[in-house]
Amino acid sequence: MDIIHPTLLIDEKRCRNNISFMAKKAIDNKLLLKPHFKTHQSAVVGEWFREEGIKGITVSSIRMAEYFSDKGWDDITIAFPCNIKAIQQLESLSKRINLTILAENEQTLKHLVENTQIAVGVLVELNAGGNRTGVEVEDYHAIRTLVDKINGVAHLSFKGFYSHFGHTYNARGEAEVIQRFRDSLRNINLMRHELRYATTELYIGDTPGCSLATDFKDVTTITPGNFVFYDVMQETIGSCKAENIAVAMACPVVSKNAKRKEIIIHGGAVHFSKESILIEDKVNYGKLVQLKADGIGTPLDGSLVALSQEHGILKVVDELFENIQIGTVVGILPVHSCLTADCMRGYKTFSGLEIDHV
Amino acid sequence: MDIIHPTLLIDEKRCRNNISFMAKKAIDNKLLLKPHFKTHQSAVVGEWFREEGIKGITVSSIRMAEYFSDKGWDDITIAFPCNIKAIQQLESLSKRINLTILAENEQTLKHLVENTQIAVGVLVELNAGGNRTGVEVEDYHAIRTLVDKINGVAHLSFKGFYSHFGHTYNARGEAEVIQRFRDSLRNINLMRHELRYATTELYIGDTPGCSLATDFKDVTTITPGNFVFYDVMQETIGSCKAENIAVAMACPVVSKNAKRKEIIIHGGAVHFSKESILIEDKVNYGKLVQLKADGIGTPLDGSLVALSQEHGILKVVDELFENIQIGTVVGILPVHSCLTADCMRGYKTFSGLEIDHV
Repeated sequence: MDIIHPTLLIDEKRCRNNISFMAKKAIDNKLLLKPHFKTHQSAVVGEWFREEGIKGITVSSIRMAEYFSDKGWDDITIAFPCNIKAIQQLESLSKRINLTILAENEQTLKHLVENTQIAVGVLVELNAGGNRTGVEVEDYHAIRTLVDKINGVAHLSFKGFYSHFGHTYNARGEAEVIQRFRDSLRNINLMRHELRYATTELYIGDTPGCSLATDFKDVTTITPGNFVFYDVMQETIGSCKAENIAVAMACPVVSKNAKRKEIIIHGGAVHFSKESILIEDKVNYGKLVQLKADGIGTPLDGSLVALSQEHGILKVVDELFENIQIGTVVGILPVHSCLTADCMRGYKTFSGLEIDHV
Repeated sequence: MDIIHPTLLIDEKRCRNNISFMAKKAIDNKLLLKPHFKTHQSAVVGEWFREEGIKGITVSSIRMAEYFSDKGWDDITIAFPCNIKAIQQLESLSKRINLTILAENEQTLKHLVENTQIAVGVLVELNAGGNRTGVEVEDYHAIRTLVDKINGVAHLSFKGFYSHFGHTYNARGEAEVIQRFRDSLRNINLMRHELRYATTELYIGDTPGCSLATDFKDVTTITPGNFVFYDVMQETIGSCKAENIAVAMACPVVSKNAKRKEIIIHGGAVHFSKESILIEDKVNYGKLVQLKADGIGTPLDGSLVALSQEHGILKVVDELFENIQIGTVVGILPVHSCLTADCMRGYKTFSGLEIDHV
């Protein structure tokens, strides 16, 4: 395969292994897997999920819901606070597919009730530690009020609860991830028991938690997304090993600076995104990896230490510096595969096939 | 104008003012302005430059060069180290337009000489403090060797030197920007004088320097790009005022958290990019601004403090918190307009016109 420009390569085997892993984990734990498609945003990768028996999916925007509805997915949850500016789009979607939306505040619900006849399933979003959106899991009064209001509206169907344990992303190591996951889940189940919602559905969906947890007590549905590719962030958290990372950027080397021992690649913030992570107190924008003819290889001792719009600066150990020439194509594992995929808007397999992105 | 989803608004008046400002500055200083189109990447905005008499442009990738060549631009400099993997594309471009490329290492030059008959102008890229790419400005031997080699090849036409003073981005305040700009320029002119290249062209092109400097001694051409929109980063550096920033994201409010005093918008890392800047020791992903019917208004006391893929978390002063309701559309000035524009791939004017992006 001849790489000329920065190209996002997908290792189909690794990707399918990741999908199988989570599909099997769901079955083993009697969970429904409704994978979040915000990471890959691809109809082709979606088909790989379908081959594993997946029927329902999760997305984070109406645009994605429309895209996958057009690709034949008819059970879609939009895991983002309902946007009342987009009611028309939601109504049109709700007529074509089995649509589930999130409710987490009374104003939005009031708007839905007064301005639409939209027939959708509703999950109440809970904040159980992620501190982004959702009703506080301890605020039983607010939760009950919201559920009662939903139940009082004929065209809305209360399904249960949704929560994204985003604080697992700040954990490091399996024990800490599982601890956070378990604490959040316990608080949600306590509420469901107290308020007698124990038989309603419970959707949860962070990749670190879903990858590492072994006890999914009273969860009905998991909605992780990132696991389809994983990335350097997940490896750093401990959710995966480097050999599970299923996408790598292929970037041509355009310059070398012997004095600063830096390799400059065509591959910058418009390709990788500007996401970074601290590894051993150093800012890292991606890790060097071997590219084999048939897939992603083993990690190499080098990292992207700076990005501008089109340039990436790669620092490598001395032996590698001598071996990597101008014109070489290097592989880089992205820090955050969701954002890199969104920047690149398309993939190539190692057999040279083009793969779509919303 | 009804905003439903995150939308990048362009304030045409501010943008045209920015273009006029730099065009006039170039004329006043007897410089040629070859604006960098990597910021806007738009044929329509390109026309606004043409109306100011601009004939030659700068880009940072072959893809951009192809796009603007298709739009009738026939004098294009690719201000990125020549990528030898893309020789075919460069050759094809060089047959259609007056193409200038950068040379900064012998391997690439050797490849150009041995493998192509490509007829292009060549600028030798110098590192005068930016520490990204370019021959060290103090390395007279390497500079002379490279120029001699270019001069020895019939199909390459040595034009002079190019340097991006990227270290002005780390300066804060006019004095520091001008100091860095002046020091880098002095070192380049010293070399040009010593090596008798004083009559060759000199291209320089950082937005902070070109916005603030008043002495462009021996510079022939300026190639800034970001000034077309400016952004919060340039405002923080001191290159512009807030009222010069010509793009703002319009984002619907989807949730409010009274306890944490946070407003959640639809507008995340896939819209803004993950670029951030420290302002008073706090990480900032964008600043709240008033949106008027006919353009961007005055800054308001609020900032984006966190971004995930689709969510943005906005912190505002208490009075504003009460006034901003779910369903309101808020304006946000981006930290880095080049990256935000690249994420959004399209603009809307305040009169509702759609504007292209590569």
